[in-house]
Amino acid sequence: MSFHSMWTELLPLGRDSASGGYRRYAWTPADTDCRAWFRAQALARGLTHETDRNGNQWAWLGDPAAGNALVTGSHLDSVPDGGAFDGPLGVVSAFAALDELRSRGVPFTRPFGIVNFGDEEGARFGLACVGSRLATGALTVEAAHRLTDAEGITLPRAMEAAGHDPDALGPDPERLGRIGAFVELHVEQGRALDLTGDAVGVASAIWPHGRWRYDFRGEANHAGTTRLADRRDPMPAYAETVLAARREAQRVGAVATFGKVAVEPNGVNAIPSLVRGWLDSRAADQPTLDTVTGALEKAAREYADAHGVELDVVRESFTPVVEFDHGLRDALARILGSGTDLTVPVLGTGAGHDAGILSAAVPTAMLFVRNPTGVSHSPAEYATEDDCTAGVTALADVLEGLIRT
Amino acid sequence: MSFHSMWTELLPLGRDSASGGYRRYAWTPADTDCRAWFRAQALARGLTHETDRNGNQWAWLGDPAAGNALVTGSHLDSVPDGGAFDGPLGVVSAFAALDELRSRGVPFTRPFGIVNFGDEEGARFGLACVGSRLATGALTVEAAHRLTDAEGITLPRAMEAAGHDPDALGPDPERLGRIGAFVELHVEQGRALDLTGDAVGVASAIWPHGRWRYDFRGEANHAGTTRLADRRDPMPAYAETVLAARREAQRVGAVATFGKVAVEPNGVNAIPSLVRGWLDSRAADQPTLDTVTGALEKAAREYADAHGVELDVVRESFTPVVEFDHGLRDALARILGSGTDLTVPVLGTGAGHDAGILSAAVPTAMLFVRNPTGVSHSPAEYATEDDCTAGVTALADVLEGLIRT
Repeated sequence: MSFHSMWTELLPLGRDSASGGYRRYAWTPADTDCRAWFRAQALARGLTHETDRNGNQWAWLGDPAAGNALVTGSHLDSVPDGGAFDGPLGVVSAFAALDELRSRGVPFTRPFGIVNFGDEEGARFGLACVGSRLATGALTVEAAHRLTDAEGITLPRAMEAAGHDPDALGPDPERLGRIGAFVELHVEQGRALDLTGDAVGVASAIWPHGRWRYDFRGEANHAGTTRLADRRDPMPAYAETVLAARREAQRVGAVATFGKVAVEPNGVNAIPSLVRGWLDSRAADQPTLDTVTGALEKAAREYADAHGVELDVVRESFTPVVEFDHGLRDALARILGSGTDLTVPVLGTGAGHDAGILSAAVPTAMLFVRNPTGVSHSPAEYATEDDCTAGVTALADVLEGLIRT
Repeated sequence: MSFHSMWTELLPLGRDSASGGYRRYAWTPADTDCRAWFRAQALARGLTHETDRNGNQWAWLGDPAAGNALVTGSHLDSVPDGGAFDGPLGVVSAFAALDELRSRGVPFTRPFGIVNFGDEEGARFGLACVGSRLATGALTVEAAHRLTDAEGITLPRAMEAAGHDPDALGPDPERLGRIGAFVELHVEQGRALDLTGDAVGVASAIWPHGRWRYDFRGEANHAGTTRLADRRDPMPAYAETVLAARREAQRVGAVATFGKVAVEPNGVNAIPSLVRGWLDSRAADQPTLDTVTGALEKAAREYADAHGVELDVVRESFTPVVEFDHGLRDALARILGSGTDLTVPVLGTGAGHDAGILSAAVPTAMLFVRNPTGVSHSPAEYATEDDCTAGVTALADVLEGLIRT
């Protein structure tokens, strides 16, 4: 089955007809449909199929127990109203690259696997990369049991409802130990390749990133009768902090975003008692990120003082920089650069991925496919068919190179 | 029954033990409890009691059909987690003032009524002053039938469930035509009396006020991978508008508040596609209010352009200035100022009241009782017992003066 046919088959699954975006959340019927599609693709190619203890799907050519396996793949779940490419492009390209390797007559001298990691986006339970985190032990079983969706359904109950046994959850070092290299192909989520004019690039590192909760607490009061001078209004302090975040990030080439806000009591005629804003910030290296977040917290405290409101800043999560395996990264760049005068772009990324989680246990690398607008996590996310084809070829080249090494 | 005893009896009704605030929403059990208390107070004083077609409660001394009735009162319902004084102070003071008039031996030469207007705060159905608006015709029956609470229950169904016949809803010109004057006593919702050092003041006017919805529409994108330069982020445009609102209001002595916000998709790692903020703005007169809202909309459009986002501004509601009846207002000031060298403060207010709605059909006036912190619509709302007593005396003086005129 061609790339185009696979893509077309996958396209309607979990798509919301109103928004045009995808709602493929972990352990929902849409997720089950995607998993059935993956299994069918595996079986159609004569691969063995298994779902591991943590809900990740694997398709194998050869016996992984032999060790030093070469694995590629990504994920099929989505953010709310996400695009078609983030995740699925890597899975579809994996099957297409296997077909290409077979047509080239490449001898499979090491076990070859294709993976669909479960719950990469964390759209339902609020934590990203649950499948890979559980496998590596980065997420404990106890913490996984406490994950709960917006309806109050826990992760184990959701797994059970989808026919997966939650009692087997936990670290899977034996399975990961059989993998010699993992290569994830992913649509780029920025415009770096568009700016350099390249269809495909190699990842160098995942930027360190974190989430901070800013709680500005003032005093609820009547919006019509309370003089400005008598207010302890957290909204202007929050507003000044939003603008400072952008300013501080801009100064050092980082990113900083307030994308989520909760207001209490959130009434049109009420001065808020609380404005809670979540900061997401990322930078190419740790000192730069520290500069942004340190300067912002200091500025926010001054704004809070000036408006007579309290400020609590809580770091809710933090992921240090992930440097992909240098040997594997260099091998990919060498393979993709050979036979041309061009060097393949090697770029950092601000987004987390299963490859980043796995890199703690397994040599991993990533390929990015050009995204002409850089739009991501939106129905407008896009890659041209030519670039997708170039991505499949690059992935096949890389896999062949790693097999023949 | 003394002011203190009435106050103590009313205090526990509809109070939330966790917040310490009141949740006396229209046509709920807490509202029914308050209505039962009102009826008991009426009957204990030998007054006749009736609930009108629109759910307003009346207690009568003498036959209102005689006309030129003198009426006082306020409301017993509350905003979410509101204070004890906003509304109830006017109702309890009304009964206490009647007791005072009787003890003074004042002859009731005109019908005398005490009123508890239904659903003044609009906490449940989103529209304030429903009882008085229906009575005056400012709210049509059709529009009232469409009012729906957060659970999807319509106003007629909620009335029915509380034992009130919704089929009788509608304008009540005959009942209003019998009223010669309505005086509402209310806790002040600002600090004007605290600043002048007076226990009681007279209302001059209710400021014109309105609500505007500001929709900033940008482009949802990944917060980690989208360069600042490539963003169309509505959050900074909203933030600049929040700060401009405060600045523009400050320049002319008005108020402007963004107290309610809705963000889409409202994800920590997502640049928003939409930030919707509601502006509440009020000023002493129409030209001043127009200056604030005009300048703000102009500034907001510039911010939106600078951030590459779209802006729609929709005026959701507007209430022109309400001037209280000048003759009645001057009579109150004269009565309260007589026998002293002091003039009683006459002040405008930014809050809406049933007295403001009624003023379209009946000569109305308001008395305010000092609020030492100006805090309102909050459990911290407060008036000292001495000031409450001064309020009852002032109300009794005013009513006696209006009876003897």
